[in-house]
This record gives sequence, structure tokens and C-alpha cells, in this order.
Amino acid sequence: MKISFCCTDTKAEPWLAGLRAAFPADHVEQWAPGAAPADYAVVWAPPQQFLDEQPQLKALFNIGAGVDALMKLRLPPQAAVVRLDDAGMSVQMAEYVCHAVIRHFREFDGYEADVKQGTWSYRKPRLRQDFPVGVMGLGVLGERVARALAQFDYPVLGWSRSAKTIAGVQCFSGQAGLDDFLSSTRVLVCLLPLTPDTQDIMNRQTLSRLRPGGYVVNVARGTHLVDEDLIALLDSGHLAGATLDVFRTEPLPAAHPFWKHPLITVTPHTSARTLREESIAQIAGKIAALHAGQPIASLAGVVDPKKGY
Amino acid sequence: MKISFCCTDTKAEPWLAGLRAAFPADHVEQWAPGAAPADYAVVWAPPQQFLDEQPQLKALFNIGAGVDALMKLRLPPQAAVVRLDDAGMSVQMAEYVCHAVIRHFREFDGYEADVKQGTWSYRKPRLRQDFPVGVMGLGVLGERVARALAQFDYPVLGWSRSAKTIAGVQCFSGQAGLDDFLSSTRVLVCLLPLTPDTQDIMNRQTLSRLRPGGYVVNVARGTHLVDEDLIALLDSGHLAGATLDVFRTEPLPAAHPFWKHPLITVTPHTSARTLREESIAQIAGKIAALHAGQPIASLAGVVDPKKGY
Repeated sequence: MKISFCCTDTKAEPWLAGLRAAFPADHVEQWAPGAAPADYAVVWAPPQQFLDEQPQLKALFNIGAGVDALMKLRLPPQAAVVRLDDAGMSVQMAEYVCHAVIRHFREFDGYEADVKQGTWSYRKPRLRQDFPVGVMGLGVLGERVARALAQFDYPVLGWSRSAKTIAGVQCFSGQAGLDDFLSSTRVLVCLLPLTPDTQDIMNRQTLSRLRPGGYVVNVARGTHLVDEDLIALLDSGHLAGATLDVFRTEPLPAAHPFWKHPLITVTPHTSARTLREESIAQIAGKIAALHAGQPIASLAGVVDPKKGY
Repeated sequence: MKISFCCTDTKAEPWLAGLRAAFPADHVEQWAPGAAPADYAVVWAPPQQFLDEQPQLKALFNIGAGVDALMKLRLPPQAAVVRLDDAGMSVQMAEYVCHAVIRHFREFDGYEADVKQGTWSYRKPRLRQDFPVGVMGLGVLGERVARALAQFDYPVLGWSRSAKTIAGVQCFSGQAGLDDFLSSTRVLVCLLPLTPDTQDIMNRQTLSRLRPGGYVVNVARGTHLVDEDLIALLDSGHLAGATLDVFRTEPLPAAHPFWKHPLITVTPHTSARTLREESIAQIAGKIAALHAGQPIASLAGVVDPKKGY
């Protein structure tokens, strides 16, 4: 068996060492143009050339949860695409989103600014029933985030393409359910996969539907959000703020207005990082299962090319 | 039935209105020196004179969870002391502590400083197994906080005077268990009641037992912590930081070094605020129960004067 590693923006050596430790009798190689064909590939944003040279690949393992970059490429038609299935990411997402929502709801940023001025301030407590949180996207990550938020007694709503049921979460689905979901939501959290259907989904029209004083947390992809529409609604006062971890161009360009906007908190795409050990263990387990003859459909995280996630 | 209201630092009118709405046929009065004796009192840090003039009181309802201020006074010997039992406070505590722990563990303060400089930074993810969180005090608030932390997959430890069992929390108890608890803990959260036994419990000796890179979150009372010992251990590098909501003197005096210490986050005693509506409802329910002849022992939150909480 041969496994090819082809990940941009990733230090290859620790991954190769981990995969070799999992498959000591097999070939695990970093891809270079013209390399011998492999059975399985571990990839992140590979060049088209890699895919064109590997028509025999049985499966591509993406070392992230979002496969939107991969889905833009021409893939070997018989190769399955498998994305990371949690691997330590959902708890990070729950942390990131809960931190952002609590910080906004409890005004901890305001208290921090007061303390910097040496002021012992009093702010009237806000009521959590006035802060319903709506989570768009109820996959592995979205569901965990919704459950974590519900634990803090916020009213929690969820929206997904197909109908879901999650205890303690009021679930909406499909285009038909979007407007009711938005108009009941004050804090909007985006955890959708990026597909042609979800691109630009947070725009002037949809964000205007949020309850007054709305807040946006984007931890999915930058292209889910129309940047200038967010800024217009912040400046008009309809929205109260945003915490953004993902951007149309990353790193966020130096001249982008998000950097300095007083109502926007920027983080450098750090909401849920791929954890190497967990990811290697998960991918190695799946490769071993396929190699032992298990059907691809038995794996978690297999991408449906028609849906794009 | 007569109910007397005697709360310093509290706007009386909304409380009186709420209690009168609950007991329209009874007398609900704000106390003034020389007032007629009452059956029940709703108090926060009342003057000794109030208690001396009310020897007939059947029960005192404290509008906070901590009764340390009340326990320093001479109380009518037959009067029961009842503290708030949650009433919306435990979820606020869970929010405050989770926000502080996540912010430290995920280095969101560091990212924020980077972003202020216009820097798109990368920090190597830290492993949550290296950040065991220890909660001192496992009452209604402490237990909720411990459970909330466990949901984010931190190793969670708990310490209390008497032995407790909480699913997902490694529990220690008594003086005999303190050292093992501390030496296994990296992030220490104090939610203890303030009693002669717990005063100054966070001092040079105990804080030195924390794992290197220790962090302190104090949401109980300022006198649980020896201020200069915390600063010495921060400056020596044994401790990495602290988030403090309570202080020996409140408001924190302008000259206190906590205000400007780069490793200390100060908030103005806002971790869990008394929520008026919930508290009135809870206290009114308990007064009605006592008035209907239920025994005091049937109520939640009755203080044991020997324990002091």
C-alpha cells in the first residue's frame, strides 16, 4: 500500500512520521511531481497537478473539516473524499463560539475597557431570554456548538439544509425555514459548509432579518459573509457587533476595514485547528479499515460530491 | 404577616413592589429605625441595629449566595438564615468561569493584542490535557461550574469540605485531600463560602502547589486570596495569570497593584449578579411555605450557623 502526503501550508515531517508509525510496512511519501501512484492520499489544498497525476487514488483524506477548496478541483472520478470527522475540532468550536457569545452577552469587553481606564463600573444585567442564539449548520461541529450554548440557558435555534432534531434546540430547515429562523435569532453563528448554495448567505437581506442588536459569529468560511453588508448594518446600528475568524482572503489583507472596526473582533482563523495526533489517528484508522476491505460508506466524514460536503 | 426589607447598596422600590405583588394582603415595608417588628426579613448587609430591634424574626432571607457579611453580626437566636439558592446565579458563574478559562487556555487575549498590532499570528495549539481545572467549593454554584468546564473536555477536579460525587469530576475533600487536589490542578477556580476555615486559603504555600503555569480564577470573596502572595508567584513566573472578580476591599482601591498588573484581569464583582425577578420569586415562595407551616428544614439554602454557610 502506498500513501501520498500532499498538504500546502503544513509542516510535512511530523505527519509523515505519524503515518509511518501507523503503517510501518507500507510506503508513506510526501508527493513530488512525477511520483509513483499511491492508493490513498492525505491532502490539504493540493495542486491540480497532484490529482491529475493520481487517477488511481482510492480515497483522499482532507486534513480539515471543510472540503470547499478540494471540491473546486477536478478529482479522480472513483476516489472518495473523506473529511476530518471532529478529531478534536468540535470542542474547539464550542469553546470559541461560547467564549464569543458569553463575552458579548455579558459585556466583558466593555468591563475590560472600563478597567483599563481604572473604572469600577456597573452595567445592568441583560436577560438571556433576550439573546436567542441561532446556529446555521448542524453537522458534527454545529450540533456540538448548539448543545454547548444551550447549557448556558440561552434560547438556542438551529438551521440546516435537511431537518434535524436536537434536544434543547429549536430546529428549522431548508429555504422555507430560513426566514423564521433569522427573525427569531439575535446572535447568529455560521458553521455551514461552503457550497454554491451557502456562499454569500449572510448578506444585507438575511442579516436585516435578525432581531435588533444582532450579533454575527462566523467560524465557517469568509465567503459565507458579504463583508460590506455586515459593515453597513453595523454602521446603521441594526447589528451590535461581530466576531469573525474566517475571511474572503486569508491572512486578512492589511487594508481591510475589519481590522480596525470598533464593533468587530478579528481572530486569525484559529477557532478550530487541526490537531495532528488526533487527525493522524483518525485518518490511519480509516485507511486501515478500507485496506482491510471495509466499504467506504462505513466511514464517517465521506463527502457527497452532489452536496459538496 | 409583616416582611421587612433592609438591604444596603440596593434600590429598594422594585424589591418592595415585587414582594408586595407576591403578598398583596400583607405588610411589606422598608425598614427604618424603630419600625414595628416583622416576621420575615429580606436583607443584604443590614446594620446591627436592625437585628437588635427585631428579636422576633423567624427568618432572614439574604439576597446573595454568600452570607459571610451576615454571619459577622449578632443574629436573633431563633431566626433561620436562608441564602439565595441559585436564582439565576449558577449559570452566570458557569459563563464567567468558562469565559475566563477558555480565554486563558486558547490565548484569546494574546490573539487580541496581536490583532490590535495588525498582526495575523499563529500560536501552536495547547493541549487541554495539560490544563486540568480544579474547582474549590462544590455547592450549587461550584458544581454547575465544574460540570460546565467538563463539557469542554478539560480534566476537571473538585475539592470540598465534605466528600462529593459529581460525574466527570475527580473529587477530593477535606484537609487531607487538599494537597493532592492542588498539585493536580493547573487552573484553580475558587467558589468556596467565606468562613474562618477558608479565609486566606489561596496563599503562597497553597498556590505554590499548583502545576507550573498555574492560573487563578477567584469568584468567591476577596479574602480567600492573599493578594501579595499571588503577585509574588506571578512575578516569580510560577503562576501565569489570574482573573479576579472579588477583592478584599470593593470597589478595588485606585492604588491597588491588581488594576495594572499585566497578568491579572480585573472585573468589578460582576461574575454572578442577583437577578431581582428570580430572587423575589424564590424568596416569596419560601416565605409563603413557612407561613403555611412548612418546616424551615424543608427549604433549600438554609444556612448552618456552625459551618457558616
